[in-house]
Amino acid sequence: VTIELGAGREFDLIRQLRERWGTLAVGLGDDAAVITPVRGERMVLSTDTSLEHVHFEREWLSLAEIGYRATTAALSDLAAMAATPRGVLVSVQLTPHDVPRIIELADGIADAVRAAGTVILGGNLSRGDVLGLTMTVIGGAFAPLGRHGARPGDMLYVTGALGGPAAALRALTSGETPPAAVRARFARPAARIVEARWLAARGAIACVDISDGLAADAGHLAAANDAALEIAIDRIPVFAGVGVDDALAGGEEYELLLAARAPLPHAEFAERFGVALTAIGRVAESGKDVRLMRDGKRVAAPPGHDHFSR
Amino acid sequence: VTIELGAGREFDLIRQLRERWGTLAVGLGDDAAVITPVRGERMVLSTDTSLEHVHFEREWLSLAEIGYRATTAALSDLAAMAATPRGVLVSVQLTPHDVPRIIELADGIADAVRAAGTVILGGNLSRGDVLGLTMTVIGGAFAPLGRHGARPGDMLYVTGALGGPAAALRALTSGETPPAAVRARFARPAARIVEARWLAARGAIACVDISDGLAADAGHLAAANDAALEIAIDRIPVFAGVGVDDALAGGEEYELLLAARAPLPHAEFAERFGVALTAIGRVAESGKDVRLMRDGKRVAAPPGHDHFSR
Repeated sequence: VTIELGAGREFDLIRQLRERWGTLAVGLGDDAAVITPVRGERMVLSTDTSLEHVHFEREWLSLAEIGYRATTAALSDLAAMAATPRGVLVSVQLTPHDVPRIIELADGIADAVRAAGTVILGGNLSRGDVLGLTMTVIGGAFAPLGRHGARPGDMLYVTGALGGPAAALRALTSGETPPAAVRARFARPAARIVEARWLAARGAIACVDISDGLAADAGHLAAANDAALEIAIDRIPVFAGVGVDDALAGGEEYELLLAARAPLPHAEFAERFGVALTAIGRVAESGKDVRLMRDGKRVAAPPGHDHFSR
Repeated sequence: VTIELGAGREFDLIRQLRERWGTLAVGLGDDAAVITPVRGERMVLSTDTSLEHVHFEREWLSLAEIGYRATTAALSDLAAMAATPRGVLVSVQLTPHDVPRIIELADGIADAVRAAGTVILGGNLSRGDVLGLTMTVIGGAFAPLGRHGARPGDMLYVTGALGGPAAALRALTSGETPPAAVRARFARPAARIVEARWLAARGAIACVDISDGLAADAGHLAAANDAALEIAIDRIPVFAGVGVDDALAGGEEYELLLAARAPLPHAEFAERFGVALTAIGRVAESGKDVRLMRDGKRVAAPPGHDHFSR
């Protein structure tokens, strides 16, 4: 059902978006969106904000990339729960400068929504002094994966190769141009949605997406399970041309850190998805922290990504 | 399930919020929130943003009021759909100045969540140059009400008395102090959640919440139903001490505008909820606009609230 809107500049913008998004936008125009759950499925919800001057500078990214990244970051939380996306709510604050270029932003959002096989359910537009996006995602899962459930002896895995976004961000904040491949990891991240469901069906027990950095997110997994995590620093898959420090401390990866009781089929995973799945450590017998190991000895951890400490 | 978080200033703040909210906050700490739908219910979702310098100035309201209003504004969209709230996702951008006072904001959010009989499911914290809240609400409804379904001959009703928030806002933007009752309508609005469900069960067919102003939201209802709406300007319930222009053009009321095929039980409604329900007009035979009528003649409409035109 397409619901017509009354007059006004704000509604003209919404009409513009709806026209551009076409069948990707479902029923925009009511006070709220409506979805029908698959019987027996639980609903999984998350929200994520991406703000100019806090999470990005517009010199670093095109408007389409800003939209794509913000949407993918939110969708990654559904991946972490092994949920199937059912829709996205798009809340945008626009500066007057952005209004004439709203279609570029809309196209980036649409790309990420399409890549996740989902739809746009609605949202909110407002003026602002900076460009900002708050993306809310809703998914369905019969058995959401969550962070807890790991126990001593479990193996730890990560998807992909880490550190690209952190290296890109470091270059960009220093006014340098990152290598194209490194920049692409920052500008066009992937949410591991189908990968997570595939792994959940093959024995993954607990999962977190690496949005705060491997060290920090491993800390969350350790805290959630009241367990220590041992990570072999030499096993961490590092993105080509990037250092292991970036792989540990860098955030906004949108790769997954998983615990599994038995080995996961990493070769089959790599073949099917074209993405590495690497065993990087294990859940230890006691403790509640993250231990970085090299040659069987503990080494010091760099601090993770934290919005309020930098 | 309470899920522990790892170290970091951001997570310290989340821990502070979780402690303050107690049992009102359910399962914060996973990558996403999980809810189990009531079998057969559809899920209703909406998101709403409240930004400093755009939607409010902090001189006008306490932090608790800012939190309460933003939450109620979002919950009002569930009321408009006659949905039962199932939870709220709280996305906050904080200035450094707000961090030590986050509990005041949290208490206002909690009041609104409690008033709606729902819970806090999760959210997002980030830094910002201005204070901003994006509240996402999820509800359940077997038959969501929506904007469409009205047809010629239907009667139009509004809940409450209109114009208070607009009058308050006009005073505040002029640096004046609004009368206490008028200010309270702005600072402590109510979302008509139980009222909407009661009316939907008694013949309300289409509904919109009056967030953009009666004239503008009537325009949405007209457009959604491809019908003209005739509103008798003398029948509009106006808040004590306020003019009818504020009742027509003012937004952020969070009262409801409803269409019904047969008369709604307004006396029983008023008795049960302590809120007026007033017949203000009807859906006309033809056209697609809003017609303000006085003594059977059309009068001109003032423009509604529009973020991008003022």
